[in-house]
Amino acid sequence: MDVDLFRAVLRRQATSVVVITAGGPSPVGFTATSFTSVSAAPPLVSFNLDRGSSSWPTVEAAEHVAVHLLGRHHEHLARRFSTSGIDRFAGTSWTPGPHGVPLLDDVPAWLVARVVHRVPAGDHAIVLAEPLLGAHAAQPHPPLVYHMGSYHSIDPLGT
Amino acid sequence: MDVDLFRAVLRRQATSVVVITAGGPSPVGFTATSFTSVSAAPPLVSFNLDRGSSSWPTVEAAEHVAVHLLGRHHEHLARRFSTSGIDRFAGTSWTPGPHGVPLLDDVPAWLVARVVHRVPAGDHAIVLAEPLLGAHAAQPHPPLVYHMGSYHSIDPLGT
Repeated sequence: MDVDLFRAVLRRQATSVVVITAGGPSPVGFTATSFTSVSAAPPLVSFNLDRGSSSWPTVEAAEHVAVHLLGRHHEHLARRFSTSGIDRFAGTSWTPGPHGVPLLDDVPAWLVARVVHRVPAGDHAIVLAEPLLGAHAAQPHPPLVYHMGSYHSIDPLGT
Repeated sequence: MDVDLFRAVLRRQATSVVVITAGGPSPVGFTATSFTSVSAAPPLVSFNLDRGSSSWPTVEAAEHVAVHLLGRHHEHLARRFSTSGIDRFAGTSWTPGPHGVPLLDDVPAWLVARVVHRVPAGDHAIVLAEPLLGAHAAQPHPPLVYHMGSYHSIDPLGT
């Protein structure tokens, strides 16, 4: 299949936006639009990561990751954690969390998960992880969504 | 991790809504919120399916599937293809597509993909597929999104 057509179709999807972090000698964080629930029993989640990305060596070795759902007021975090060549954590409010993973403050929800499998798939890997703990804000936040190359939030369907 | 907390966190995600179909002696179709791009080179996509679902035996044996992105005016399709015990194709406008997969009419975009791998993961499987062909409407449609147990569309971020 032609890669331009593939990209044109995928741009039309609406994807949720998360920031994933991993600890280690040099902690990493990156914006992802592929986070999804996989299994309910046992609980499993997954995300995909380019094996050529700067975060991959750390994620390849990581035993734990944190997943942060972003809200509509978090476009700056989504942009920051997808910008190359900067210290993404500088100017970001975070704390060291369980198992050494950086936890971003004030997100609508987060999970800390144990990596259980990395499945190579083309130029990416599917990272499967088992959530160990997490939390969410008392009130649901409107989520941040990516569609046609720009950030959006959601809107109830009219009648 | 407590399953109720896991579900509460995942409900706060915004997921895109697709209908996936597979051919065979008895074609199947189901609504999914786990569709995602996996790799660019080669192009690969994935979705997750409950191995206890009525569609699993057909998808387990299928060589090809079709993925249909739904638009904001497609809530009825999302509900129809997630309802048990009905003929989901009855009253739905569709045509037999390439490789015998049912193609739903008038969706914002679709792909026909060859299944390349099924990765068991807890009570689900991750189905990896290579897109072979596809198309999209000339103008992008507002997508259908699922969040906190109900359907939404998207809304540009205000300034």
